[in-house]
Amino acid sequence: MSAIPVPFSCWPGVSRYLPAMVSKHPESERLLLGPGPSNVSSRVREAMAQPLMGHLDPAFLTILDETQQRLAELFGVTGGLTVPLSAPGSAGMEACLINLLEPGDRIVTGVAGVFGGRMSEVATRAGAAVTRVETEWGTPLDTRAMIDAIERVEPKVVSFVHAETSTGVLQPVEEIAAAARAVGALVVLDCVTSLSGVGLALDAWHVDAAYSGTQKCLSVPPGLSPVHFSPRALEAVQARTTPVQSWFLDVSLLAGYYDGDRKYHHTAPVSAIFGLAEGLRIVAEEGMEKRELRHREAAAALVSGLDELGFEPLVEAPFRLPMLTSVRLPEPLREGADAAVRSRLLDHHGIEVGAGLGALAGQIWRIGLMGENARVSAVDRLLDALRTEC
Amino acid sequence: MSAIPVPFSCWPGVSRYLPAMVSKHPESERLLLGPGPSNVSSRVREAMAQPLMGHLDPAFLTILDETQQRLAELFGVTGGLTVPLSAPGSAGMEACLINLLEPGDRIVTGVAGVFGGRMSEVATRAGAAVTRVETEWGTPLDTRAMIDAIERVEPKVVSFVHAETSTGVLQPVEEIAAAARAVGALVVLDCVTSLSGVGLALDAWHVDAAYSGTQKCLSVPPGLSPVHFSPRALEAVQARTTPVQSWFLDVSLLAGYYDGDRKYHHTAPVSAIFGLAEGLRIVAEEGMEKRELRHREAAAALVSGLDELGFEPLVEAPFRLPMLTSVRLPEPLREGADAAVRSRLLDHHGIEVGAGLGALAGQIWRIGLMGENARVSAVDRLLDALRTEC
Repeated sequence: MSAIPVPFSCWPGVSRYLPAMVSKHPESERLLLGPGPSNVSSRVREAMAQPLMGHLDPAFLTILDETQQRLAELFGVTGGLTVPLSAPGSAGMEACLINLLEPGDRIVTGVAGVFGGRMSEVATRAGAAVTRVETEWGTPLDTRAMIDAIERVEPKVVSFVHAETSTGVLQPVEEIAAAARAVGALVVLDCVTSLSGVGLALDAWHVDAAYSGTQKCLSVPPGLSPVHFSPRALEAVQARTTPVQSWFLDVSLLAGYYDGDRKYHHTAPVSAIFGLAEGLRIVAEEGMEKRELRHREAAAALVSGLDELGFEPLVEAPFRLPMLTSVRLPEPLREGADAAVRSRLLDHHGIEVGAGLGALAGQIWRIGLMGENARVSAVDRLLDALRTEC
Repeated sequence: MSAIPVPFSCWPGVSRYLPAMVSKHPESERLLLGPGPSNVSSRVREAMAQPLMGHLDPAFLTILDETQQRLAELFGVTGGLTVPLSAPGSAGMEACLINLLEPGDRIVTGVAGVFGGRMSEVATRAGAAVTRVETEWGTPLDTRAMIDAIERVEPKVVSFVHAETSTGVLQPVEEIAAAARAVGALVVLDCVTSLSGVGLALDAWHVDAAYSGTQKCLSVPPGLSPVHFSPRALEAVQARTTPVQSWFLDVSLLAGYYDGDRKYHHTAPVSAIFGLAEGLRIVAEEGMEKRELRHREAAAALVSGLDELGFEPLVEAPFRLPMLTSVRLPEPLREGADAAVRSRLLDHHGIEVGAGLGALAGQIWRIGLMGENARVSAVDRLLDALRTEC
């Protein structure tokens, strides 16, 4: 849990895997301050390196049980089905939407950035009738506009993003979810960047399906997507009249393995789950309250330090993500000039920050202080490097 | 590359991750002789435990380049697109089929076991008109019957399994693929269990799309699916009139990241690719000719040793998989009695073997000698344990 990443030399045999480019900055590992992946603690890396077990081995299944239970606690849910899906967050998004939508079903989806747009695209491919409620990037969805659309369309599903990674906005959830519940709609929430960085209470918020990623605030390598389906969502899947378009993501088949029977569906990614299990233990040891506070304190230090260097926050204070800060580039870094600075940060300082995405490309940076990296020491290291390179 | 797995105690910090159940057999790791996962060498585990890099980091992209190139060599292909898909083999199957099939397209699919059946199910969900050519489990597809169906149906796609993991059959490919090519069909081949255990020459065989898994003969943890699309297959994707049903598996989007531009699609599973890259280096160091021979020698020793214990091979000699041997259970182990023996093998000897699947449940075992485990020393350890427990 050290703030300063462990030097390469502590890792036996690691140096031989490193391509020559990394040796420009040989004294330490990368400090990953982009929108994910974040740095992974040595405990998680050791867990992933443990000898393999079979995916039906009772010893492995106890670890899987523990993992599913801890994920449910972080989502703030009881009941339903919570699984570490064997694919990244984008597949988790797809799993939530395509299990709940049949061709012709109506969905209202909030689009306030790249990931809301991706939800809309996935729902369209599933044959749904999509009503998009858009907003300016960098602002949250307009709650009134979402509620109006929900009441007008009376959709089967309402979907939106809790933490929009492309803009750095934290979206208020409860009012929109309550309006959806009032018309009998199911709520799908993107929690890729929020899970384990801010507290979630999906049951209390009336969220029916949600997905996340491991490479953000959990500080576990990318590759798995924690996914939750509420009992109500599972009933909706049971009531389908057409099969889910994907065999791999069909939750009624996944449940055969993940919900008690442990019946073979596909070979679960054992080593990745070892890593996730250890990452979840670290979160539990710290406790969510302390963890959220740590994220908020690091973000405050970052915003304050960047302000002195001419980077202004994109997002109004009440809606800023604590784990991912989006900042407008100062004048000299606009129109593509930021790429050279990002390269120098990486090559000379071993620090990765994220470029703008979609409509905000070339206009902002996205700086993640997620999980292991949500520390003032990481902020200081970035600010020192920026003072040299900008 | 030692035949005897490394003891737990060599792995610093590992013991604390082990649940109590494993401590019944504390002196060594599991010997995984089921249908996968197989044991993973210490080099691969060390590679997975190296500090993380970003999925767009130039240093990581050199490793990804190398990985894609080595996978193409193992598939026996040039051109097209070869990627380590960020999900298990079942998702690889789905990627190959749903990119090539549009609703209403005709497919002829060979069904000689569970995985041929899964192909048929995935194609049905994609809206294809599926013609199944079935055969008795434990035998290869009837080449004449496949060719007759291909000539009669003139399908867009012909799919079948190279190494049927549920039966232990190695399927001859070339005649069926040639017949498919003659009617202009695309050939999809399941190489989950064959890749890097026997030599593949997909270009020479006229195979247009193929998928594999990492947890079989590559001896890398489960979670990734090496997938190949030939130039002809990519043209067929370009010629589609409807979008691919899955955003996550749409090869035209995946190509934006994996084919040169390295444009963000989803966050690639960096640590798993570190492990795969190292696993592929080990394969290259050994060479495929030597590696295939090693698999064949280990399988021959297994069949001969099991014969003395009353286990008879399910499959005729010319069609037996070298990396996965299916054997009929002796009389006293039938009707479910084998489950207790498998438990004792695991609990007292740390050895996992695979049960029968689908129509062969309770009738056979499936014993994998894959990758790191394709050694006579592993056979000896299993035979010793069986002499004690049967």
